[in-house]
Amino acid sequence: MNVQIGKQSLQFAEAPYIISSASIVGKKEGEGPLGNCFDVVGDDDKFGQNTWEEAESTLQKEAFTMAVGKAGLKPEDIRYLFSGDLLGQNIATSFGLMDCQVPIFGLYGACSTCGEALSLGAMCVAGGYADYVVSMTSSHFASAEKQFRFPLEYANQRPLSATWTVTGSGAYVLGKQRSKARITGITTGKIVDYGIKDSMNMGAAMAPAAADVICRHLSDFGRAVEEYDKIITGDLGTVGQEILWDLTRQSGYDISGVHEDCGIKIYDAKKQGTGAGGSGCGCSAVTLSAHYLKMVEEAKYKRILFVPTGALLSTVSFNEGMTVPGIAHAVVIEHS
Amino acid sequence: MNVQIGKQSLQFAEAPYIISSASIVGKKEGEGPLGNCFDVVGDDDKFGQNTWEEAESTLQKEAFTMAVGKAGLKPEDIRYLFSGDLLGQNIATSFGLMDCQVPIFGLYGACSTCGEALSLGAMCVAGGYADYVVSMTSSHFASAEKQFRFPLEYANQRPLSATWTVTGSGAYVLGKQRSKARITGITTGKIVDYGIKDSMNMGAAMAPAAADVICRHLSDFGRAVEEYDKIITGDLGTVGQEILWDLTRQSGYDISGVHEDCGIKIYDAKKQGTGAGGSGCGCSAVTLSAHYLKMVEEAKYKRILFVPTGALLSTVSFNEGMTVPGIAHAVVIEHS
Repeated sequence: MNVQIGKQSLQFAEAPYIISSASIVGKKEGEGPLGNCFDVVGDDDKFGQNTWEEAESTLQKEAFTMAVGKAGLKPEDIRYLFSGDLLGQNIATSFGLMDCQVPIFGLYGACSTCGEALSLGAMCVAGGYADYVVSMTSSHFASAEKQFRFPLEYANQRPLSATWTVTGSGAYVLGKQRSKARITGITTGKIVDYGIKDSMNMGAAMAPAAADVICRHLSDFGRAVEEYDKIITGDLGTVGQEILWDLTRQSGYDISGVHEDCGIKIYDAKKQGTGAGGSGCGCSAVTLSAHYLKMVEEAKYKRILFVPTGALLSTVSFNEGMTVPGIAHAVVIEHS
Repeated sequence: MNVQIGKQSLQFAEAPYIISSASIVGKKEGEGPLGNCFDVVGDDDKFGQNTWEEAESTLQKEAFTMAVGKAGLKPEDIRYLFSGDLLGQNIATSFGLMDCQVPIFGLYGACSTCGEALSLGAMCVAGGYADYVVSMTSSHFASAEKQFRFPLEYANQRPLSATWTVTGSGAYVLGKQRSKARITGITTGKIVDYGIKDSMNMGAAMAPAAADVICRHLSDFGRAVEEYDKIITGDLGTVGQEILWDLTRQSGYDISGVHEDCGIKIYDAKKQGTGAGGSGCGCSAVTLSAHYLKMVEEAKYKRILFVPTGALLSTVSFNEGMTVPGIAHAVVIEHS
């Protein structure tokens, strides 16, 4: 029996396995500290396409194909797809995954989408609804700049608190077939609004949501911080990380010893000029696949908490003077 | 035990109940044939807000509050929210449901979102993950025109094949508590692309996806068309309806005797000048709540197939010359 724990968490009776995963990234991510860990590094960020949006769609198509292939499956073995992206009306997902011909649930959780997709995918498998599902997401630096800030041709300046959208897609095959990592529980986030209005400081907008879901998770499961080898947020960057540590301390949890952030991990910010760190749905999706999941599979980490973080804004909401609320979804991944 | 049926369908062992629902619409919808059936008809489409986007958010907040209230519950009794809308980055949902403080899964399925939300909500309850969830969605004529076509101030002309985006939000409380209607099964759609490039003829873009999921549903469940009192699509309008009937006939199913379309139902197109009919996520969401669900609750219909339909496009994809693929999700609702 799957168990509802506390107010916001679930523990799976038969925890679904992460059977395989795949990551594909752009040139800049390939030049970063994890460069050797990704499955594919493109040398042309257009990935052979005419537009940035089609390039991002291609990332999703490739990540899906690789992950399914690594699992020794065919697309028709996948019962459901859970995917989303940052672009208006999820077009990277729709056009990227159209040819897979798999029933699809389109998601939007801003940069928390990888957590949302893994949560729903795990619920689906653990509920007996599917033998195999794929949970995935993507982002692309150029399509995101065009969507949220300025087209690249404007060559606008960026404050140091700004993050750099990761070009990449990560895909995960979840199922009942035994592997070396499984999703044992989830904590689903609420929208948290601290009134931040600076869309160039998304770490500050997302940190309260991350703090909220991490503290709620530890409280729901009755666990100490030390019971996790790592607590990994999605894309808070250096500015957001400090705020997260402060906020969790205020709630009685000192996570500074085990906390890492995919946005900080993926780039060498000083050398690569990426400001406060990486961001975007793809950031946590490719970093989990390329690095943290491998550490779990190799039993270097026994249990991690993966917490992708999202900033809920659009250019319309921003221009209308609205705040930037945050959301984060936590996924427990354990060695098996 | 919940059962996977055929390639794309699920039958629930303990089918979740639709405990309550609520609908709120704008002035034009209130003047249509279902005007007396909605819970709330606004006389100002701004619903007391400064912007169209905030107005749409208000619709979601009100629909959520009403549905939860009708079920005799409080927001804190709701374990998960499944919601989405048409606006870029789902801002109507994020800002509308932020104050509810319920863990939320943001969805994007274009105008099929009500089907997606009900499907995931039902899976969640039937899987033992929640006692109560809320599945909902919204659209707003003015925010959608601004998002997809032209701001209202341009007073642009519209071809007859164009549909009219419904201003409204529909919300559903699903749970295990006995009521007069339940979701007994679902069939989840794939993305279907017939190469339509006319964003003013979305009925034609969505009809193939609706035909695909309806035929798949009947085949997966081994049922005849006559076993449904109604098969109800979301927003194909008059143009899309003809295409749907043709396509399903080609697959050996004549649905013309039982088919209705929420987009056709909600307006008196000739009197109200709404072209081919109503559209938008809100169209099927409010029409199900105001009309079809009541018919099921009163046992006038024993079993219906509710099939919200979505056109997957954005202004970016459209301007880049991409096609308009469609998607549709089918939900079986039975009297209980």
